[in-house]
Parts: sequence; C-alpha cells; structure tokens
Amino acid sequence: MLRVGINGYGTIGKRVADAVRAQPDMDVCGVAKVSPDYVAVGAVEAGYDLYAVDDERIDEFRAIDIDVAGTVDDLVEQSDVVIDATPSGVGAQNRPLYERHDTPAIFQGGEDATVAEVSFNARVNYDEAADADYVRVVSCNTTGLSRLVAPLEDAYGIEKVRATLIRRGGDPNQTGRGPINDTVPNPVSIPSHHGPDVQTIFPDLDIDTIGLKVPTTMMHVHAINVSLENPPEDDEHVRNLLGNEDRLVMIPDFAGLDGAGTLKDFAADAGRPRADIWENCIWEGSVTIQGNDLYCMQAIHQESDVVPENIDALRSLSGHLSGPESRSLTNETLGIGFSRLNGRVAKRLDTQPAD
Amino acid sequence: MLRVGINGYGTIGKRVADAVRAQPDMDVCGVAKVSPDYVAVGAVEAGYDLYAVDDERIDEFRAIDIDVAGTVDDLVEQSDVVIDATPSGVGAQNRPLYERHDTPAIFQGGEDATVAEVSFNARVNYDEAADADYVRVVSCNTTGLSRLVAPLEDAYGIEKVRATLIRRGGDPNQTGRGPINDTVPNPVSIPSHHGPDVQTIFPDLDIDTIGLKVPTTMMHVHAINVSLENPPEDDEHVRNLLGNEDRLVMIPDFAGLDGAGTLKDFAADAGRPRADIWENCIWEGSVTIQGNDLYCMQAIHQESDVVPENIDALRSLSGHLSGPESRSLTNETLGIGFSRLNGRVAKRLDTQPAD
Repeated sequence: MLRVGINGYGTIGKRVADAVRAQPDMDVCGVAKVSPDYVAVGAVEAGYDLYAVDDERIDEFRAIDIDVAGTVDDLVEQSDVVIDATPSGVGAQNRPLYERHDTPAIFQGGEDATVAEVSFNARVNYDEAADADYVRVVSCNTTGLSRLVAPLEDAYGIEKVRATLIRRGGDPNQTGRGPINDTVPNPVSIPSHHGPDVQTIFPDLDIDTIGLKVPTTMMHVHAINVSLENPPEDDEHVRNLLGNEDRLVMIPDFAGLDGAGTLKDFAADAGRPRADIWENCIWEGSVTIQGNDLYCMQAIHQESDVVPENIDALRSLSGHLSGPESRSLTNETLGIGFSRLNGRVAKRLDTQPAD
Repeated sequence: MLRVGINGYGTIGKRVADAVRAQPDMDVCGVAKVSPDYVAVGAVEAGYDLYAVDDERIDEFRAIDIDVAGTVDDLVEQSDVVIDATPSGVGAQNRPLYERHDTPAIFQGGEDATVAEVSFNARVNYDEAADADYVRVVSCNTTGLSRLVAPLEDAYGIEKVRATLIRRGGDPNQTGRGPINDTVPNPVSIPSHHGPDVQTIFPDLDIDTIGLKVPTTMMHVHAINVSLENPPEDDEHVRNLLGNEDRLVMIPDFAGLDGAGTLKDFAADAGRPRADIWENCIWEGSVTIQGNDLYCMQAIHQESDVVPENIDALRSLSGHLSGPESRSLTNETLGIGFSRLNGRVAKRLDTQPAD
C-alpha cells in the first residue's frame, strides 16, 4: 500500500486526494492546507487528516473547531510519496523539505520543468518516471495537447502543430480573477510557453502555441491545426483513431453538447464527482482534414484532466505496475470514459459514413 | 409505494427524478423527454425508463440506439402522480392529459398559479395540498423568499418586505441566453411578478419585488429588506432564528464563501449530486438590524431549491405523512443541511457574542 501525502489541498489537491483514495493500492495519509476556510471544512467532512503549515496555523484551525494532525513536516515524514499541489512556484520552494525527508514527490505543471527530473504524461512517457525521485505532471493544457498529439504522431507522423489556447480566466471559485468582459492575449508573446512545455514531453515535436484568456471559469478550449506527414484519406479515419484513445472523448453532433456549459452539465448528470471531466472532449464535427492539415477543437477541464495523470505518476515512480496496467486501473477506478456517448458515435459513424 | 411519473426531464425534472428515487416510499415509473440529446443519454445511464412525446419522436430516440418504453400517455397511465417539469406554459397545456387519466399532478412555478388548486411551499402550507388533485410548487425565487419570510413572520411579525432579485441569466447549460455583459432590469415594471407570486403562499403579506438579470449561470442572489413589527434587539437573534431553519444555511464569514462560485465549489466538495444546493444560503455577515428594518442577502440555487419541495408536495398530495414527517424524511434522504458549516457558526456565535 503506497502511503501518499497531499501537500496543498486546493483545486488539484482535493481531487487527487479523492482519486488516491479510490485506488486499491494507495492510501491518503493526510492533506496539508494553509487556510482555515470552506475547503478545509470539506477536507474534514471527507475524513482526511489535516496538517497545517506551522504551529501558528494549527491554532487558526482549532479556533474554528477543526482538529489538526500536525504540520507539513509530520505529513512528509509519514508519506512514501508526496503529491505537491501547492500554488505555482511554491512547489519548487518545497523540494528541499522533501529532500530532507528523502521522500519522493510529484509536482504540478505550474512549476518550472527544472523542479523535477522528468516531466510526465501517462500516455507518452510513463516508463521515464520509474527511476526518478521527483516527477512533474505537466499542466492541464499540456496534458490535453500531449494526449491528442500522441496518437496522431503514432498513426500519421507530425510535421508541425499550431494550437490556439482559449483559456478560462480562473477556476469556478476564483471569480475575482478576470477577465470579466474581454478576450485578452495572454501571454501576448508568441509562441506562448505552452509549446515548449509540450516539448518537455515530445522533445522533437515542432509546435507553436498562442494563448488567450476569456471570461469563463468552466474549461479551456483549444483550436488546433496539425500538419501531418502521412494524412489519412478522410476525417472519419481520424475520428476513429481518436475515439479509440481512452482519455479522449469524441463529442457527437446529435447530443447538443455545444460548449463547456453543456459538457459540465452532462458530467454532472453522469454522477461524476464535482462534475469532473478527466478526458479531452473533442468535437466530432470539428475534426477535419484539408490536404495535409488536420483541424479540430477540444475542451479541457482545467480542474481535473491531470488527476489521472497524477495517479499514474505515483505508480510509475513506485514501480509496481506497468504503464498499461496503471492507466487501465486508474481509468476503471475513476470511471473514465463516457462509453455510452462514444458508443453512439461509433454507431452513427457505422451507419452514416457519408455524414 | 407511490408511483411517480416525471413528465419533462430537464433541469428540474432530472433532479426530481433522482430525489424521488432516493425516497423509501416512492418509485420513479419513468421519465418523458422531448429531445434525443445528451440529457436523454443521461436518463438512460441513470436507468430510467424513457418515454417520448409521440411515435415520431420514438423513432428519433431509436435512431441513436436509445430504447423507448412508450409515449407520455403510457407514462401518465402507469403513474399514481405526475411531476410536470416541462417548460413554462407547457404544463398548463398538459393538464387535460392528466385529467383524462384521472391522475393528480404537480406543476412547477413557471406555470401561472391558476394551473392548480394550490400553490405550495413545504414550510408554509403543506396541509393545503392534501385535498388537492393539482398542486403547483412555486418557483425557485418564490420558494427562497417564502422560506425566509416564514420564520420572520412567526417570530417578529412582518410589516412589509422589499426584495431585489439579482437573477442568473440562464442555467449552466443555457449559455446562449444572455445577458452576456449587462445588468438588465427584468421585468422593468415594478413590482415584478415575484411579489404577487409570494402572495400565493402568504395571501396577506405586503411585499414588493424588483427583478434584474445578470451574466451568471450559477445562482440567484436576493438583496432583502424586511420591516418588522416587533424587531429583536440585535442581529444575533435573527441569525440564530434563521440558523435553526432546516432549509436555510447561514454562511459564516470565516469560510471564504464569498459568492456563488465558492458556494457551488463547496457543494461539489461535499459530494452533492450535481453540486446542488437545496437550501437558501444566507450570508451571516449581511444579517443586519437597523431600527425596525432587517437586511440580508441570500443566494438561491435555481436548479435545485424546489427539488425537496416537489418531494414534500408528493407526500402532501398522497396524504400518508404529516408535514414535519415528510420534511424530515426529505431532508434526511437528500442530505439537506451543511451541518458542519452551521455547527461552526453556532459555536462562533456562542463564544464570540460581541462579534
């Protein structure tokens, strides 16, 4: 049983904690949190042992009647591995703490790639983390791009990727971040940092990215062009290729899933925790071949698509399952895949090939 | 076992179906739906028998491989009671169908009050529906206002209510509705229709309301003034009064629950289905007595606050439980109340009376 400590219990940390708890081969030994707010109340409701950053903070939690099991230092000491889900930049500051305890750690994509020996995507380079002590799961956008790039590279070869990332302004609980009524080039410099980040997963990939921010809290949306070396005959070939990937979901035209609002509503109807969408959502109707160029649009749930990747990173690092075994177990325990939706797509493609 | 048919499987219908299924004394005998879209896929995933409006629609469902159990007519025939959760105005058109089958029905607040014999709120007039065949559960906003008005009327007597309703533009899956960047008086005439609607529950209440719409899909927010006949000495008296109501939740200052975004995130963390918030969320820090005037602000989750009211309306109409018994059973089976949050409030008020 792998004992996992979660340092940082925010958007990502609370989801990874629940996902760890859903695994048969892992336990959550506690979660560390800075502020005594509603998320801390939620951690206690969920039954996690709560750790504070220092003794002063322990008192703040006790003032609102929340028991604290100790400090972050105690949590790291008890953990076989730590998931660092602290805010961007804080992870790097925490690394000496993990080194002091000789405890391996998994960082998030908000950290610079230099924080760890390996930047990680479960589909692409699972085995590379096996010998590492420090692994970085790449960001939500980089994860989303990597999952799409991998099968296209395998099947057709890629000449170049050009992607426009229309990014959500903040998470649902960050309504103060903005933008509130604007479309903001962010960063204004091109290529944005996302392209180089994808290259931490695919070192030889030619990719340029453009980033913007818009006033939504729901999902990122990517408008993607991939120039292929050996393009297939038609769009359908691509749809079937992508539809067979376990962390890509093809969104069929019939379903009325016309944006992030309906996608999140669908995930809520499916009974998913927090209406999370761990998969890339690729609009079937957008998948288009024009000569050598493939185009498509996909929605990426910024709060949750890295969650299964963190679980697989834990197993790669601890070394007790192979990549396919780990991904399969993660998918099964979390309930990844909207099988009925994909089933419908497959049927539709079978019966209406000329669509 | 009360056999309940759900006619209209949208925002309200799908939630009421799940709530009926959670009751020990009711069964869902099927749901009727117009469009073969993602919500229909969700109904099948949830295991409900699906009924179509007519034979032509049955074929549309079968084209996407969804089995249909029959038409709405068949569903009504099999039901002891029907929940009509069709779009506003359609319910009234459906009433002759229910009459033809001699099947009692519960309509939603989008219908004119004349659609039914009784307009219903579980806290206020549970017993009035006992002799009725047709009951109308009032709208989300009217439900939210009624729950707040009831204890204030009981404890202090009400001279007059003045409420400004800052309404969400649409539900999360209705992103096309707007407004997208505006605050729109809606309706521009004052008082808005909400005041008279509250009077269907409190016939003698003096109440004026103003309505507006803003670009959010998350919750309505009410800014409320109640002129009291016998005001209490201080704000704390009101907070304790309201905090003891089972479908009101006092939002403590410490929690960082600063708006609908954080409230929904908290509900998601609590593992609630669809992150629903069945209770009025009243910001503790806004509860203020100025002379005879009470002020406060509350958030109302438009998608779900009427769900427990529909369940209670079913029991009132069928007559096998008293109001307190039904409300208690509904609260327990759905998991109503953020007890830990309210516990914190109570403790805080006990220990810091001068706050």
